[in-house]
Amino acid sequence: MKPKEYLKNLKPYVPGKTKEEIMRKYNLKRIIKLSSNENPWGASEKIKDKILEEIKNIHQYPEPINPILMEELSKFLDVEKKNIIVGGDGADEILDVIFKTFVDKDDEVIIPIPTFTQYRVLANIYGAKIKFGCYRYENNFELDVDSVLSNLTNKTKVIFLCSPNNPTGNIIKNRDIKKIVEEAENSLVVIDHAYIEYSKKEYDWTKKIYEYDNILILRTFSKVFGLAGMRVGYGVADERIINEMLKVKPVFSLTRLSQVAAIEALRDKEFFNFSVREGIKVREYLYKELKKLKNINAYPSQANYILVELKNHTSDYVCEELLKRGIIVRDCSSFDGLNNRYIRVSIGKKEEIDEFLKELKNILEGDINGM
Amino acid sequence: MKPKEYLKNLKPYVPGKTKEEIMRKYNLKRIIKLSSNENPWGASEKIKDKILEEIKNIHQYPEPINPILMEELSKFLDVEKKNIIVGGDGADEILDVIFKTFVDKDDEVIIPIPTFTQYRVLANIYGAKIKFGCYRYENNFELDVDSVLSNLTNKTKVIFLCSPNNPTGNIIKNRDIKKIVEEAENSLVVIDHAYIEYSKKEYDWTKKIYEYDNILILRTFSKVFGLAGMRVGYGVADERIINEMLKVKPVFSLTRLSQVAAIEALRDKEFFNFSVREGIKVREYLYKELKKLKNINAYPSQANYILVELKNHTSDYVCEELLKRGIIVRDCSSFDGLNNRYIRVSIGKKEEIDEFLKELKNILEGDINGM
Repeated sequence: MKPKEYLKNLKPYVPGKTKEEIMRKYNLKRIIKLSSNENPWGASEKIKDKILEEIKNIHQYPEPINPILMEELSKFLDVEKKNIIVGGDGADEILDVIFKTFVDKDDEVIIPIPTFTQYRVLANIYGAKIKFGCYRYENNFELDVDSVLSNLTNKTKVIFLCSPNNPTGNIIKNRDIKKIVEEAENSLVVIDHAYIEYSKKEYDWTKKIYEYDNILILRTFSKVFGLAGMRVGYGVADERIINEMLKVKPVFSLTRLSQVAAIEALRDKEFFNFSVREGIKVREYLYKELKKLKNINAYPSQANYILVELKNHTSDYVCEELLKRGIIVRDCSSFDGLNNRYIRVSIGKKEEIDEFLKELKNILEGDINGM
Repeated sequence: MKPKEYLKNLKPYVPGKTKEEIMRKYNLKRIIKLSSNENPWGASEKIKDKILEEIKNIHQYPEPINPILMEELSKFLDVEKKNIIVGGDGADEILDVIFKTFVDKDDEVIIPIPTFTQYRVLANIYGAKIKFGCYRYENNFELDVDSVLSNLTNKTKVIFLCSPNNPTGNIIKNRDIKKIVEEAENSLVVIDHAYIEYSKKEYDWTKKIYEYDNILILRTFSKVFGLAGMRVGYGVADERIINEMLKVKPVFSLTRLSQVAAIEALRDKEFFNFSVREGIKVREYLYKELKKLKNINAYPSQANYILVELKNHTSDYVCEELLKRGIIVRDCSSFDGLNNRYIRVSIGKKEEIDEFLKELKNILEGDINGM
């Protein structure tokens, strides 16, 4: 009854404090959450009625593949249904299925860092060998293409490219993705587009699945659609990849209420367009205002968050000080490839961002106990 | 970009026809679904208000471990919180986590059949070697303990015991489980109690986790609690097992709405007690009435379904004939260890069961084209 040998050094996930615990601890009346890259305007109002309608069916197993959801997704993406796989734990389930399908113990994966932590977490769980590439600090975190290609071997099963990259916010240039996809013709290149709706159309690789049969585009309802709590994600790829993944995908994992919520989210174009437009507007405002502050460096972003480098403070000091003032941002010291000088700030409503900027300014101009 | 070698022969899940497709195909006005062992009375009415309240938060990630849900589960089971792990894809996620934690490629698992298919499906996905034991047809599907123990080796990682067993409906005797648990001291014995609420208290092994550190009790909200569409399951085991599993468990997989639904389901004792009481009453009624019919053999059940052996018909014939009449039951020919002479009938409301019995009688007394 021993666990697998290679899992020995893994640590269980330790959940952060809940909102309620934070409010009690610091005696707060309100919390502004700018830590998880969620949609500050919530989700489409129209979802409520659809969920209400569906509640009568929650005692029945969900449809494994919801034909209406597939139809709406197909229209939204302008790709065929057979090129889409939908997961019931957000994009995390699609990532898990990628490992289940393609990555055996001791196979290699390439992960340029700093990036979304889940690739590394799953690589460890599946016993894969990780070759780290890098997004270059000294070059505004632009992807170092050679750091990926120099790690390519005949054991490389998957390469994870996050564009826009989390937490740095920059996209990967089309010519760089192209070079990797074409050189790594025997590997699956996962292009994580969780935040693509916030960036320019020209960086969207979704339709490129008809040009390359070794790419999988990872997307989600957790960001611009405002459904992080409903756990809906999807992958888009060549039909052969999708079919292999369907062999191992959990069959019933997408709840009934998540299905109707996702369908309605796709149908409410008005809320979607509003969320994209306002999200980008707030991001640009946040960037402009951060640029005015001394002792920090804000990185340009094509996502719904901004990475901030702290010149004179540590990230835990600034995060704790913000917490005392009821504002949660992400301390980036837990990202492989970043030190304790970075925080990530999600977009919020204009008034939330103003509140954050005011408090951050106070903290930065205050004492430097955090050093 | 080739999938793992051992996955080559797996087939993707082919979803069955939807209710709507069946209704169109057979020109039906109503469907009686007795195929998935769901709760025919739905779920607690009180869940609706809780879901309505929570909808405002669906844009936020779920709490990874919901303290209120853990508290309520702990009270319900009378075990400590540290002995419980909750999954976001029903019991299926807990099963997946068991494989992730304990079962490496080429490790062995023991699965007595016929039983719940998911154990075999996951064993194939994880590349495990399956040793089949058996529930003996000639002995009312009683577990053949020797068929399990004779397969025990030092590579046996997990043994799957389903009690009450799906689809046969019988429990495994306490002394038989005890014998296996004590002999297989280096293996994890999974005791699947998905249907335990419908059987006698003396067969519930949940509290035995304090006696044996090599058992995991698998349980679910999909059956008596009526939440199959919300995907909530859980495991109960020694703290060391739980801690190992928490290292690899998906962190956010339980949706926000599933969390509040599960909490309310645990709190509404009235609906729970009603569902157990009425469920058992209908099951016994169904059993008694089936026993009156000629050319079939109904097996006694401690679950919310009954296995029926057809003496003069094939299962696909009877299932198709029932379908034409708007009644869905489970054709058991897809279960390893059963041939095409078995169907499984879930409990329904009394009037649904009467309708089923009437139509089954008509079919059995009709022509024997199905042979």
